Amino acid sequence: MYGYAMNKPDLLGRLKRVEGQIRGLQRMVEEDKYCIDILTQLNSATAALKAVGVGLLDGHARHCLRESFEQGEGDAKVDEMVAAMARFVGR
Amino acid sequence: MYGYAMNKPDLLGRLKRVEGQIRGLQRMVEEDKYCIDILTQLNSATAALKAVGVGLLDGHARHCLRESFEQGEGDAKVDEMVAAMARFVGR
Amino acid sequence: MYGYAMNKPDLLGRLKRVEGQIRGLQRMVEEDKYCIDILTQLNSATAALKAVGVGLLDGHARHCLRESFEQGEGDAKVDEMVAAMARFVGR
Amino acid sequence: MYGYAMNKPDLLGRLKRVEGQIRGLQRMVEEDKYCIDILTQLNSATAALKAVGVGLLDGHARHCLRESFEQGEGDAKVDEMVAAMARFVGR
Repeated sequence: MYGYAMNKPDLLGRLKRVEGQIRGLQRMVEEDKYCIDILTQLNSATAALKAVGVGLLDGHARHCLRESFEQGEGDAKVDEMVAAMARFVGR
Repeated sequence: MYGYAMNKPDLLGRLKRVEGQIRGLQRMVEEDKYCIDILTQLNSATAALKAVGVGLLDGHARHCLRESFEQGEGDAKVDEMVAAMARFVGR
Repeated sequence: MYGYAMNKPDLLGRLKRVEGQIRGLQRMVEEDKYCIDILTQLNSATAALKAVGVGLLDGHARHCLRESFEQGEGDAKVDEMVAAMARFVGR
Repeated sequence: MYGYAMNKPDLLGRLKRVEGQIRGLQRMVEEDKYCIDILTQLNSATAALKAVGVGLLDGHARHCLRESFEQGEGDAKVDEMVAAMARFVGR
């Protein structure tokens, strides 16, 4: 049972909305909308995805990491979380 | 007729794939997959979206901007593109 | 004579301030300041650097790109600018 | 005594190198170097700063967070870390 399970409906709702934004982007491209307007919509989808990622990291730190520290296996979990975070910040 | 129209099928194909990735993310959350694995998949969706954004900026610079310079209206277009780019890089 | 030369003193002033921020970060590490406070200061230095980057891209689009379009060599310049932008957004 | 103190010389060495890169950027601007080359150098300074930030978050998770969990105050620390991380990823 992972940390994010605590707010699974919230995560699913956010991902559902991002899916809607991506479909909106396809419609904009199909209708030859202005590229800068498409980019603005794309930025807002990327921001929504990043917010989901931050939520996942939050749940991970709050639950998985705590548990691992309690079981004396924290270091491996921190390695894993920091590696995920590093990819996430674009490094 | 905007710049990106030049490779509309390519843009649509990429967005379709991102939509699939977002649906994959929802499945992972529903099936209680490990948060770090979800984050890895989310990173790859964000990267795919950024690549679409770079493609849009490319088309914009190559077509809209060129046209605007030729019509002596380049400065307003550069303002607009740079503002979009600044939002895009997270500033 | 490149585009950014138009606001060279502004660019230099911004870089001088970033240099001060980096030295401030070293002081904070030396004085064992709290890691989250150091990270906050580091974020503000990164943001200042990104703003300089956006300024450089602005000057580039406004001057170098325009000139290249006028000389019929715009496409190579757009390739180069988009590649720089793509690295800049972390792709 | 904070977590990053564990590798203080490493952190200071990295920040010293970033300081050198920032001074290099000023020289490039003063000498009217090509804007795309300046941007490439700026990207490498931003990447180096991000790596320092990831290092700080690593130390924070590994030391401060563990301690807080052990003292039953983990949640407030996670809030703080996730907020710092969220600013860091540009959200």
